[in-house]
Amino acid sequence: MNLILTNAKLVSMVDGTSGYDPSNPCSIVIENGVITHLLPECATTLDTYVSFPHLDCKGAIVTPGFIDPHTHLVFAGNRAEEFEARLQGESYESIAQRGGGINSTVQATRTASVESLITLALPRLDSLIKSGCTSVEIKSGYGLTLEDEAKMLVAAKSLEQHRRIRITTTLLAAHAVPVEFRNDADGYIEYVVSTIIPYVAEHKLADAVDVFCESIGFNLQQTERVFKAAVDHGLAIKGHTEQLSNLGGTQLAAQYQALSADHIEYLDEAGVLAIAQSGTVATLLPGAFYFLRETQLPPIQALRLHKVPMALGSDLNPGTSPFADLRLTMNMACTLFRLTPEEALRGVTCHAAQAIGQQDTLGKVAVGYTADLAIWDIAHPSELSYQLGMGELKHRVVNGVIEDVH
Amino acid sequence: MNLILTNAKLVSMVDGTSGYDPSNPCSIVIENGVITHLLPECATTLDTYVSFPHLDCKGAIVTPGFIDPHTHLVFAGNRAEEFEARLQGESYESIAQRGGGINSTVQATRTASVESLITLALPRLDSLIKSGCTSVEIKSGYGLTLEDEAKMLVAAKSLEQHRRIRITTTLLAAHAVPVEFRNDADGYIEYVVSTIIPYVAEHKLADAVDVFCESIGFNLQQTERVFKAAVDHGLAIKGHTEQLSNLGGTQLAAQYQALSADHIEYLDEAGVLAIAQSGTVATLLPGAFYFLRETQLPPIQALRLHKVPMALGSDLNPGTSPFADLRLTMNMACTLFRLTPEEALRGVTCHAAQAIGQQDTLGKVAVGYTADLAIWDIAHPSELSYQLGMGELKHRVVNGVIEDVH
Ligand SMILES: [Zn+2]
Ligand SMILES: [Zn+2]
Repeated sequence: MNLILTNAKLVSMVDGTSGYDPSNPCSIVIENGVITHLLPECATTLDTYVSFPHLDCKGAIVTPGFIDPHTHLVFAGNRAEEFEARLQGESYESIAQRGGGINSTVQATRTASVESLITLALPRLDSLIKSGCTSVEIKSGYGLTLEDEAKMLVAAKSLEQHRRIRITTTLLAAHAVPVEFRNDADGYIEYVVSTIIPYVAEHKLADAVDVFCESIGFNLQQTERVFKAAVDHGLAIKGHTEQLSNLGGTQLAAQYQALSADHIEYLDEAGVLAIAQSGTVATLLPGAFYFLRETQLPPIQALRLHKVPMALGSDLNPGTSPFADLRLTMNMACTLFRLTPEEALRGVTCHAAQAIGQQDTLGKVAVGYTADLAIWDIAHPSELSYQLGMGELKHRVVNGVIEDVH
Repeated sequence: MNLILTNAKLVSMVDGTSGYDPSNPCSIVIENGVITHLLPECATTLDTYVSFPHLDCKGAIVTPGFIDPHTHLVFAGNRAEEFEARLQGESYESIAQRGGGINSTVQATRTASVESLITLALPRLDSLIKSGCTSVEIKSGYGLTLEDEAKMLVAAKSLEQHRRIRITTTLLAAHAVPVEFRNDADGYIEYVVSTIIPYVAEHKLADAVDVFCESIGFNLQQTERVFKAAVDHGLAIKGHTEQLSNLGGTQLAAQYQALSADHIEYLDEAGVLAIAQSGTVATLLPGAFYFLRETQLPPIQALRLHKVPMALGSDLNPGTSPFADLRLTMNMACTLFRLTPEEALRGVTCHAAQAIGQQDTLGKVAVGYTADLAIWDIAHPSELSYQLGMGELKHRVVNGVIEDVH
């Protein structure tokens, strides 16, 4: 679509300080959904593009549309009761024994239809959209059968038919061992690599494959089998790694040229070096850190030192991060992880784009990039991380189409 | 105003478990802004009140409208730059030396007109409203002259002309020592008690008087002078006490029958006993605890043991809690302070009403209470504390007038 925005102060997120400091007011020309010109403000611009739809940004800050590179947004069921039970003193073990925890989400998700998964997902997606998102990555992982994993991925992708949003999907069949394979994680992984991954690849249901590599998830050998199968089927790789302990999953992910290693609170310097060399993005998930009251901080200084791009995700999920708000994620990244507001903003724009493998078209306001933009009621981009419920989104542009936001 | 709500599941917040467990669907009859009947659902109800405006709640949960009993919502200026500077490594001292900190907010607020303070306040208020508020307490404290404190209180109260909201105002002239009285805190307190309090009382600009009793605020003697003057002028009392150290401000507040003692992370058991006996509410402010990365938790177990009502406030302010979202406050109270979701909900309803001295008319869904209600897209009240960006407000009722919420 064509569009012209005038009087826009760009926070373009191109490399260097000029990517973060707001520009002088300028015009953004969009043709067929792509940014074709960034022009210094002048009266003749509008004359040249007189047939284009036009928005006067009135000096507002324009950033790339936000990208949430790590969510579990599609699920059924409700874990508020568990949250309450824990705060009333019930143990995790007791909750798990009566069918709580991830098993309750799996059970509810298996029972739900695609339509009902979509209905449940839309308000969560709307909330992410209000926080500035134009792209959202969504993982499966609550189906744990071919049919139910496929159903989740179909529901996720079809959200693009209901909202102006870009969805990328990730197969996370290796999220937990389903009850049918209790005490046989290897058997389940065999099913994942021989049945689920080939089907998902053949039907193009996912852009990437992810594994929960953890003592309470899958071990290194199991993780590697999944990564190998993903490579064999031409799918990109992601990992839930080093969240609760240092197993070496991140280094393994680096060996397989993963797009991103996610969580990584327990990553050591050798692991940081490995992802620096493989070009793997470090995706930080402060919502889960906060909700689980973790104390082990991710190795931020080492990531900075070795110039590893840091992305930020909401990790939206019912068990450990029930927050559909990427601005909250940014504030938590600054407050809890001590990221700077610039790092936080790169984390949801250019670095998040890299985490989903789309750094050449998304995450920057630059000529040749896709016209996914967020227009904000703020004076400086630091406000995006600093405050919540203030400095809200005014308009979004997705693929060159403008949308007001309430 | 008259109104009838049908098919409403009440979470009434009356004492006991029946106040928290959702009721069977029933009807709420509102006459002249007051709840006059709570009726079991039956077909004849609508016939009786046929002339009343009617909303079918379709089985939704109805709670009392939320009350934020502690905000600094009226201010000018912006402290995002400071937030960024600190994360880039600049010290608090260096920021203060170049005019940052509270002084920058005071300077900007003194320069602002009433109209401009209102314009700046409205988006913050709108965000609190979206999170369920029907009542908001607002403090002065960035003027620190008679004229500027009065201006802040006038701006705060006049928000009632712009939105359907109930505003209570608190004079917090004893928030900081202004530059004109540098090194003469006693002189400033003399000015507060002899000039500001009498004027504010005479012109009915505030409902209560508050003091920041802290090593970096005012000492016990200065605090007591302010409390005495407030009593002399018939104003209620509140205190910012025991936030960063244990000075004894809470016990002093108890002696003066304060409505609430706020923050109280450092309160000891003797202090808890004192407020238990005086009937003073403990107002917890987890937003500031989170933002300042405090580690000293308020004495929750002692407060429970001695049956001190716990209220929750956003503490919305530019320096230490830039969050205009009472749902976030509730989540932080549960996650960081380990309150139960029921305690969190009482904290923003019946106990918050007590913290502003309005427990006889606000904070419960009961016959004789004011019809300030919140209608939620949830199945159980625990969801209000558990998740953010999901389970949103559908409608509000303020004084019997219904309003949709986007
Ligand atoms: Zn995850
Ligand atoms: Zn305060």
